[in-house]
Amino acid sequence: MPRIALRPENAQQAQLLRLLRGNGPHSRAELGEAVRLSRSKLANELDRLIEQGFVESGGFAASRGGRRSSIVRLSDSIRFAGIDIGATSVDVAVTNGELEVLGHRSAEVGVHRGPSAVLDVALDLLGKLRAEGTAPDVHGAGIGIPGPVSFRDGVPVMPPIMPGWDQYPVREAMSHELGVPVQVDNDVNLMALGEHQAGVARSVDDFLLVKIGTGIGCGIVVGGNVHRGVSGSAGDIGHIQIDENGPPCACGNSGCLEAYASGTALARDAMAAARAGRSTHLAELLEHAEALTAADVTEAVAAGDPVAVQLLRSGGHRVGQVLASLVSFFNPGLVVVAGGVAGAGHSLLAEIRSAVYRRSLPLATGNLPIVLSELATAAGAVGGARLISDQVFSVPRGAEER
Amino acid sequence: MPRIALRPENAQQAQLLRLLRGNGPHSRAELGEAVRLSRSKLANELDRLIEQGFVESGGFAASRGGRRSSIVRLSDSIRFAGIDIGATSVDVAVTNGELEVLGHRSAEVGVHRGPSAVLDVALDLLGKLRAEGTAPDVHGAGIGIPGPVSFRDGVPVMPPIMPGWDQYPVREAMSHELGVPVQVDNDVNLMALGEHQAGVARSVDDFLLVKIGTGIGCGIVVGGNVHRGVSGSAGDIGHIQIDENGPPCACGNSGCLEAYASGTALARDAMAAARAGRSTHLAELLEHAEALTAADVTEAVAAGDPVAVQLLRSGGHRVGQVLASLVSFFNPGLVVVAGGVAGAGHSLLAEIRSAVYRRSLPLATGNLPIVLSELATAAGAVGGARLISDQVFSVPRGAEER
Repeated sequence: MPRIALRPENAQQAQLLRLLRGNGPHSRAELGEAVRLSRSKLANELDRLIEQGFVESGGFAASRGGRRSSIVRLSDSIRFAGIDIGATSVDVAVTNGELEVLGHRSAEVGVHRGPSAVLDVALDLLGKLRAEGTAPDVHGAGIGIPGPVSFRDGVPVMPPIMPGWDQYPVREAMSHELGVPVQVDNDVNLMALGEHQAGVARSVDDFLLVKIGTGIGCGIVVGGNVHRGVSGSAGDIGHIQIDENGPPCACGNSGCLEAYASGTALARDAMAAARAGRSTHLAELLEHAEALTAADVTEAVAAGDPVAVQLLRSGGHRVGQVLASLVSFFNPGLVVVAGGVAGAGHSLLAEIRSAVYRRSLPLATGNLPIVLSELATAAGAVGGARLISDQVFSVPRGAEER
Repeated sequence: MPRIALRPENAQQAQLLRLLRGNGPHSRAELGEAVRLSRSKLANELDRLIEQGFVESGGFAASRGGRRSSIVRLSDSIRFAGIDIGATSVDVAVTNGELEVLGHRSAEVGVHRGPSAVLDVALDLLGKLRAEGTAPDVHGAGIGIPGPVSFRDGVPVMPPIMPGWDQYPVREAMSHELGVPVQVDNDVNLMALGEHQAGVARSVDDFLLVKIGTGIGCGIVVGGNVHRGVSGSAGDIGHIQIDENGPPCACGNSGCLEAYASGTALARDAMAAARAGRSTHLAELLEHAEALTAADVTEAVAAGDPVAVQLLRSGGHRVGQVLASLVSFFNPGLVVVAGGVAGAGHSLLAEIRSAVYRRSLPLATGNLPIVLSELATAAGAVGGARLISDQVFSVPRGAEER
């Protein structure tokens, strides 16, 4: 198979590639119907895609009464990489052209160690996955970063928990290293794309994904695409102010959503409860550690500790309060709740639901599922593969037929 | 000129029509470059558009060195109607194919008089405009309604201030009456489209238009199109709750944005100030009327009454508070402030700006103009013409070349 360093030549080819990505192998007859091309024009475009190594032909579809139509599929050698950089770990997945995960590895590494160290870990994981796989080349990589990103420039922009990353040329560095197209986005946007590609949002084109982890962010999908806003900061809901007299936030303001409901806020409140003797369970956990974490709260919730349950509910209530406004404003078809704190389970979700359903307009909540993420830790990496496949399977700017 | 009861036959024709709508007459050479069609293919498509009466050919462009290229333009007989139904008045505009307003009339009529009475007034105004004009036929009408609308069905849905309108088949009735395509939308969405077409948002594809009138609503434009949400209620921000212990709202809840900052709330607070003797100016106005209105507050502001200025500022602060969250969430490129209360001027705008710039993320407000509407009362009618021209100048569903 030839190495693919190409992009489709026109909108029809791009559309064919995306159809094959989303729905697997097709007969030529089915493709012709789906893209409304004449038989000869379709044959031309498919021949070009086969020459370029994007597509392969093989086998025949069951007869529908006439000559049997031959099957085409994305080339078996196409590989995309998704790299999800978290606050404390890196996840790498390799997929085929249809974005099925063929291999997935992760490693612990603190994002505070800086871009070279963290990206080296990612490259190392990717190298292992490539060595294991049947097709060693990847044709593009999508990278998620736990902070604000200039999507256009492929660089982090003043990410609060990532010393050394501000303006670091992640896209350029990784594209140079791998020799293939790379895109960089906020991790929450990639999680939303991942759930849209292969998770709970699969059939939904307008939805929100709220990630509650160390911080709180929101991925916005409009018409099947991520809405990033004019400066790429859309979805930064963690610093929406709930109460100007509320608790201080790491950002310097007071009463931000994150100051109430993030993993960091939960850990802070859990420590206070433990020290004040309000929860023996949390106090015991604190005896064996320097500090409590959101994961400790989750554990205490699982063990039935009423104070921990109350902390989680109170956080859920605050998230629901903000979400209620956003649901009235945006009228999404689905809300997905994701992130480490969301893993704590249904008491959080119940509070979020109750606040949203009570406060948003009936027209906006009449048919609004609020559900947990399905892909959990894989969502970001799958979203990364989806992101870069969107680019590789599109017509380069300038060559576009409008 | 033949009567147009047609739609373009394919995506290229639709694109040509929209180019001519947005940018006026073009030479064939310019059109060919803009749509990337070969000369013969372009000539074919233009011939079809001329046969159908969409386009006319005439005159020659200045030579660019070779044979002079002939000019094409939208047919001079194309007319669109925009009908903006407000709480107390109806505005009707007739435009040409390029959406230039050729005639504009309005009449006072309370929306509470019910759909037949109000739509009759609109038809009457439109009849007069048609009689005055050189081309009597309209080829489509876009209608704005001051309440929630099911865009898909073309009917109002439980509009709070519109007794008798719930589920009334406005689109069907008007389309039957006029014999042309009709679309019905929320008035705020149409104002946003109007400002995008011909006003302050002309070059901006992602923006919010906030209307502060009797009620408060928001039009959301994403990528140049109105975002309506899955049930068509996107932008209904009037009942976002600011404080659960706030003043009662007409909707039955407490502390909604409208309960603080709508024209209705301003009038209520102005009456209280007049009765309590806090403003002699407002008290004098109240002596000559049964009740004060938002327009009285506006007048008092213009006269320099400090209490009225304070009321307006306080409303602006509340609007800014909600907008700050929406700006962080959506990251628009522009915020347009419109509606009767917005007419009161710059102290309102100053408060909104100060609240948004102080509370939203720096990345989202770094380059965010917050400006007053430019078209004022004509915005809705222009938006109506734009809305229906989008439909008339598009390929009917099912015939689409995807």
